[in-house]
Amino acid sequence: MNSRLIFLFTCFLFSCMYGQVEKIEPPFWWSGMQQNELQILCYAKDIAKYDIEIKDVTILEVKKTENKNYVFVTIDTQDIGPGKIAIDFKYNNKVEFSQSYEFKQRKEASAQRKGFDSSDVMYLIMPDRFANGDPKNDTHSHTLEKADRSNPGGRHGGDIQGIIEYLGYLKDLGITTLWSTPLLEDNEPTYSYHTYAQSDFYKIDPRYGTNDDYKRLASEMHKLDMKLVMDYVTNHWGSKHWMINDLPTKDWIHQWPEGFKRSNYRMTTQFDSNASKIDAKGCMDGWFDTTMPDMNQSNPLLLKYITQNAIWWIEYADLDGFRVDTYSYNDKEGISKWTKSIMDEYPNFNIVGEVWMHNQAQIAYWQKDSKIGAIDNFNSYLPSVMDFTLHDAITVMFDEDENAWDKGMIRAYENFSNDFLYANINNVLLFTGNHDTNRINEIYQSDINKYKMAMTLILTTRGIPQLYYGDEIGMLGNRDKNGDGDIRRDFPGGWPKDEQNAFLPPEKNGRTKDQEAFYAFTKKILNWRKNASTIHKGKLLQYIPFDNVYVYFRYNDEKSTMVIINNNTKDRKVDIGRFKEGIKDFKTAVDILTDNNITITEEFTVPAKTSMILELK
Amino acid sequence: MNSRLIFLFTCFLFSCMYGQVEKIEPPFWWSGMQQNELQILCYAKDIAKYDIEIKDVTILEVKKTENKNYVFVTIDTQDIGPGKIAIDFKYNNKVEFSQSYEFKQRKEASAQRKGFDSSDVMYLIMPDRFANGDPKNDTHSHTLEKADRSNPGGRHGGDIQGIIEYLGYLKDLGITTLWSTPLLEDNEPTYSYHTYAQSDFYKIDPRYGTNDDYKRLASEMHKLDMKLVMDYVTNHWGSKHWMINDLPTKDWIHQWPEGFKRSNYRMTTQFDSNASKIDAKGCMDGWFDTTMPDMNQSNPLLLKYITQNAIWWIEYADLDGFRVDTYSYNDKEGISKWTKSIMDEYPNFNIVGEVWMHNQAQIAYWQKDSKIGAIDNFNSYLPSVMDFTLHDAITVMFDEDENAWDKGMIRAYENFSNDFLYANINNVLLFTGNHDTNRINEIYQSDINKYKMAMTLILTTRGIPQLYYGDEIGMLGNRDKNGDGDIRRDFPGGWPKDEQNAFLPPEKNGRTKDQEAFYAFTKKILNWRKNASTIHKGKLLQYIPFDNVYVYFRYNDEKSTMVIINNNTKDRKVDIGRFKEGIKDFKTAVDILTDNNITITEEFTVPAKTSMILELK
Repeated sequence: MNSRLIFLFTCFLFSCMYGQVEKIEPPFWWSGMQQNELQILCYAKDIAKYDIEIKDVTILEVKKTENKNYVFVTIDTQDIGPGKIAIDFKYNNKVEFSQSYEFKQRKEASAQRKGFDSSDVMYLIMPDRFANGDPKNDTHSHTLEKADRSNPGGRHGGDIQGIIEYLGYLKDLGITTLWSTPLLEDNEPTYSYHTYAQSDFYKIDPRYGTNDDYKRLASEMHKLDMKLVMDYVTNHWGSKHWMINDLPTKDWIHQWPEGFKRSNYRMTTQFDSNASKIDAKGCMDGWFDTTMPDMNQSNPLLLKYITQNAIWWIEYADLDGFRVDTYSYNDKEGISKWTKSIMDEYPNFNIVGEVWMHNQAQIAYWQKDSKIGAIDNFNSYLPSVMDFTLHDAITVMFDEDENAWDKGMIRAYENFSNDFLYANINNVLLFTGNHDTNRINEIYQSDINKYKMAMTLILTTRGIPQLYYGDEIGMLGNRDKNGDGDIRRDFPGGWPKDEQNAFLPPEKNGRTKDQEAFYAFTKKILNWRKNASTIHKGKLLQYIPFDNVYVYFRYNDEKSTMVIINNNTKDRKVDIGRFKEGIKDFKTAVDILTDNNITITEEFTVPAKTSMILELK
Repeated sequence: MNSRLIFLFTCFLFSCMYGQVEKIEPPFWWSGMQQNELQILCYAKDIAKYDIEIKDVTILEVKKTENKNYVFVTIDTQDIGPGKIAIDFKYNNKVEFSQSYEFKQRKEASAQRKGFDSSDVMYLIMPDRFANGDPKNDTHSHTLEKADRSNPGGRHGGDIQGIIEYLGYLKDLGITTLWSTPLLEDNEPTYSYHTYAQSDFYKIDPRYGTNDDYKRLASEMHKLDMKLVMDYVTNHWGSKHWMINDLPTKDWIHQWPEGFKRSNYRMTTQFDSNASKIDAKGCMDGWFDTTMPDMNQSNPLLLKYITQNAIWWIEYADLDGFRVDTYSYNDKEGISKWTKSIMDEYPNFNIVGEVWMHNQAQIAYWQKDSKIGAIDNFNSYLPSVMDFTLHDAITVMFDEDENAWDKGMIRAYENFSNDFLYANINNVLLFTGNHDTNRINEIYQSDINKYKMAMTLILTTRGIPQLYYGDEIGMLGNRDKNGDGDIRRDFPGGWPKDEQNAFLPPEKNGRTKDQEAFYAFTKKILNWRKNASTIHKGKLLQYIPFDNVYVYFRYNDEKSTMVIINNNTKDRKVDIGRFKEGIKDFKTAVDILTDNNITITEEFTVPAKTSMILELK
């Protein structure tokens, strides 16, 4: 053959083997999954004109939509072993081209993976703002927004490599679990650093690294016995997502006659038996923001797409959990099915949903097997929710005076008084702040005593504590006054030329004396918590705070830990007799914050604005 | 026989017939009750030494206690018809004396009596402060505290006769149901006018009248097609109760080593799964006040005593309901049994319990068949609870500006968003104030527009509205500043020599012009409500308030009522399109507050700080 013929023949072969399919999603799958159906999305110009055949594979459904550029092929995967199958696209009974599709060998015991739990401490970072491990990827040719560290709302260059480099710092601090805000591609032209307007659900944003880098992050963490939690967004995609620009079906997203329609954000409409339909729809189907088309989880194709995508990431990157954004804004039935599918595939996994409400019954409604949800015939199947009401309390109570009926430590006490409303109170996330709230040390005006009391509380009560990056060095930030950028400042030292490196100790020209005080306290309590079995799974026993002093116990059959938070501006004596039920027959204790030994058979003093964590002996 | 013999013989007969029994309670009973057991308390010096026999009656149990002055005789009443039985007290097998005991004929259909419901409007009075119908009983030889109208915390002389005299006023105003604070004897030497420290549970306080007067009050009310609700106190008795001064059993009341021990008032301890035992006991067994020994409802003798006493008053006075004081401070299991026993005897009766909490889940917990209570394996059997969270909202929202996320009318909206938590949302009591809160017109600084909006709300939303005496003429009172007496001022005109009589219209030298404005509005809306079927039993449909304008509908299959509360300081247009679900195909409406006709097919204006109640046509 002459060279021209060889070229044509090669083109022919190529079109047979790889065809005209522009996108195929999921890009591959695994054999040995619990769920035996796989929906393969095939995208190409006019692809719907083809018939589909797959040799030796049962096709359960071929779904075509009003958009001729899509075909959704659902196959039975039960008998498909590792290797490749060929999807044939036929026209007039003739195979026009064929698409190879790979099934990988599933990792052993993948289905039994154990998610994060109350023995863990989670650390939340915004990857753009934590550490810039690879300055070469700060700006990328495939993405629109370029790096600009001078812009509080711009891309600053933090990335996965930066996180990997500081895993030792986190490990040393006592962190066991990392939640990073989203890392998938967000190709908005501006304000994309938060990455909640994702443009490709199968691809890490190149400014953070590659899919392989993300997988490597998980792998490096697992070597350190740490866990990785992905921030998953079901409610909305980014306006630059390729599918948003060529919708498979009109109802892939929630459409409004006026184009963009902002959500009314009234999540109560989702259970309010008196709510008007227009308001309930306005919450659930309204868009979270202009750049975030609201996904229609009641569309079964979309639901299957995001379900498989979530499972794909667990399996691909070897994940230990999800945090799900804006959980309670989703289509209720849809998000419930999504959550159940994932938990069916991974029964010991954990998923925490953002249900940002200010009432325990309303938050509890959204937890798996909730008796409150059951009133409304609803089960979210969501294992974990966030203790936003505790956060509400934490932001005010340490500034409140001592003798109010409903203020100061009473707020914490009352929060826990409602624990019975939750189906699983030990699977709630506890936090003093996150990427959407004023920084806790800003609220406390850098008063370390308040920080210590707040940390004592979230690190010793029931549930899963979560810290926000930089709180451990006293970072400040006021969202209400200065906008989101202010609570998402770069971690000092995360960038090569930073003047100061707060990842390092003072003696290495690292943390300032003030930062070190925050850090040292945090490190001490976190490292103690790692092995504190009473805190991990123990029961809670609490006492009504008097004089702004809150006393509680975490205990199991063998051990008991007594926690005293004296939020009073004066020293306070502890009347031991009252706490007999918690102290039992223990006689002495060690205060794990000071290493002091205490005799607990007689009255003792807790200094003003101080907490004690007493391991009873 | 000579006169001396006759005298001795008479004495002998008297001792046989009436014996040495000082007290027998209940004083009589009825034949034909659903429940077939009756516990008769016999009290006399050393009465426990006798054996008990009753001819032709089955004695189920004779219970003697550590106090020899009591015998509790439980009999089977199934076969006892109207008439008298003789209880024989025997010593050494010889009848020493005999006590006659009467069974009256039960009123026909008594068991089926229908309690108050959401078609009613309740009016709460403090009888000492409403009207003095009989100045002769202001001071009474049998009770310690004497009348002193100059003392805000003293006895002022109001009485049952006063209430009876002004039933016409209440009927005319549009009231259908009366709740009077307690009327039973309270023999505290001071501060007895509130009458919550009762000293005899079978006797109306003589300063209010007689048992017959109370029965007459019910009878006069029934003639006017009105209902009477008794304020029943299960949680505590007065320190001057004869049984408190000679306790049948030590555990008749909650005893404390220190004598008096005040309740910690933390009602959350009753369901808090983390609560310490000492705190839970401190709430439930602590005393409400020094003059109020805390009754032990887990003592079966006491429980039976208060159960029968409650039933006795229903049957005797022909009552239409109870309001139960401090319901959630009682022994939980005990009060649940008490409530169930009464509702078993009168299945269509109604009982509303004071559960003064500030969280809907916590209030809902205490309602019959609550799914929240069921989480804790608790069922109170209490048909009705009070909407304290709505009251919380009402006291602040009309002073709040228009554009807050969680203020103004949003507070009302959010309260109703939690309706699904209640087992029976139409059986909750709605109020703008009561005898324990600042007066609503004090809070509103006599701003009648705010009063009108508040009244519109409680008189048109779901549930049973309750007014507090004098609110309808704009009475003022600040408890926080001036104490309880200030919110319990005498109704002007209730006393013979009062300078002004606000029971009368302006033209009869009665209400001032300002008072008349409050009165006229109240009368208009109440009289309309009497026949407003959508309000009585209709469903509620509510819309998210925007710009501080709250719109909701009460509707049934045939009719619909649209309520608009414009709490904005500016006039607001109503965008009809948004409310299609509520307006349905109705075209016009009449505003029942102004009698204006409105076309509701086009936008219309609601003036600032004004409400509209539109009956759709």
